[in-house]
Amino acid sequence: MKQFISEISLETCGEGFTDLTNKINNWILKEEIEKGIISINTQHTSCSLIINENADPKVLEDLSTYFKSLVPEGGFQSHSTQNKFFPYKHSEEGLDDMPAHIKTALTCSSLSLSINKNKLVLGTWQAVYLWEHRYQKHFRKICLHAIGEHHKNQSPKA
Amino acid sequence: MKQFISEISLETCGEGFTDLTNKINNWILKEEIEKGIISINTQHTSCSLIINENADPKVLEDLSTYFKSLVPEGGFQSHSTQNKFFPYKHSEEGLDDMPAHIKTALTCSSLSLSINKNKLVLGTWQAVYLWEHRYQKHFRKICLHAIGEHHKNQSPKA
Amino acid sequence: MKQFISEISLETCGEGFTDLTNKINNWILKEEIEKGIISINTQHTSCSLIINENADPKVLEDLSTYFKSLVPEGGFQSHSTQNKFFPYKHSEEGLDDMPAHIKTALTCSSLSLSINKNKLVLGTWQAVYLWEHRYQKHFRKICLHAIGEHHKNQSPKA
Repeated sequence: MKQFISEISLETCGEGFTDLTNKINNWILKEEIEKGIISINTQHTSCSLIINENADPKVLEDLSTYFKSLVPEGGFQSHSTQNKFFPYKHSEEGLDDMPAHIKTALTCSSLSLSINKNKLVLGTWQAVYLWEHRYQKHFRKICLHAIGEHHKNQSPKA
Repeated sequence: MKQFISEISLETCGEGFTDLTNKINNWILKEEIEKGIISINTQHTSCSLIINENADPKVLEDLSTYFKSLVPEGGFQSHSTQNKFFPYKHSEEGLDDMPAHIKTALTCSSLSLSINKNKLVLGTWQAVYLWEHRYQKHFRKICLHAIGEHHKNQSPKA
Repeated sequence: MKQFISEISLETCGEGFTDLTNKINNWILKEEIEKGIISINTQHTSCSLIINENADPKVLEDLSTYFKSLVPEGGFQSHSTQNKFFPYKHSEEGLDDMPAHIKTALTCSSLSLSINKNKLVLGTWQAVYLWEHRYQKHFRKICLHAIGEHHKNQSPKA
């Protein structure tokens, strides 16, 4: 059993989703990890990792619109307190910053996945996304750490 | 240290909770995993894995009712945009489909748990549930992948 | 490769955040884990583990206020059902109990993180928090389980 660590660095295009599935699978192939457990983590507090539908892009649009409504800019109206408006206290870094921290708390920044036969064990309709919650583009780092067994090379070199 | 991989397949009864705790513990016993880390993953984007209360079934009823209200059918009213109604764009697969994807994003589809003394390390009131978000029953697959040590057999065979 | 298991026990101060980062890093140092994967889990269903901003305490205040509004005491008003009020059915353990279970479901009780160079791999602004959702102080147990390699001791004893 061996350990494998790497980091994905990428620039997001502002709020929205970057599919990491191929990037992670390519790394698994390059490192020749046949079978193992992988821990995937963002190094940030205003973007998330989620596993969601890979086919219809409208799912991602709806996720985005829904979360913008659930976690509004500037502050929120509390329906349990006579519709009182609560402005965010942490507001120095922009209207989209505190909502980004809340969206991160509502989703995940850590995933533990299975690797088998040299790729992530995912369902037919699943993809692993980095979800950028800030409006501007940002550089993001994702840590990949796997523990597992090397590929059994079945094609002997001539 | 060894690796252990398996898959749980089950049919859900429509929206609601299936307790996986015994199924997972039985697999751990069968595989004789004494101590290790287990990665548990659904292969789907409209059901979740959650750890929640195992005693009073009213907790699960309340969770279900709350999430149905938080993520309504058909679309949602945005209180940050003059109560404007936003219908989901992804609507071809039924009224409960897009809400199921959102509920999956709001919860988890990946868990990393500890195994010790041949069972999951859980608190007294914790159970691991598969939470089906679709209204109809569905076949669901959950991947179990553990890395750890074999059971030290303390009962010598006669 | 070795396994390392331990438990953090602490008393929370009621609803709010306890930074676990140093406690976990101290344990990693004491156990001399140079590189590995760690699974961190609460043993409870009314508190969470989250990774969020470590610098401005107002972020934690806003998180707390937002979640109290999102998951009100006593029950919730459903905007998809003519503002009908749904009291929680699970109400025997106090006004803050069912909201605590819901907040746990909306966040995480399980994290999988990377250890490298004898500490958690975290971004500059990230901390690991235990988020107590109950109003009163509670004793909480967090399980730490790592698989990895021992520290390569570079300072030979005289």
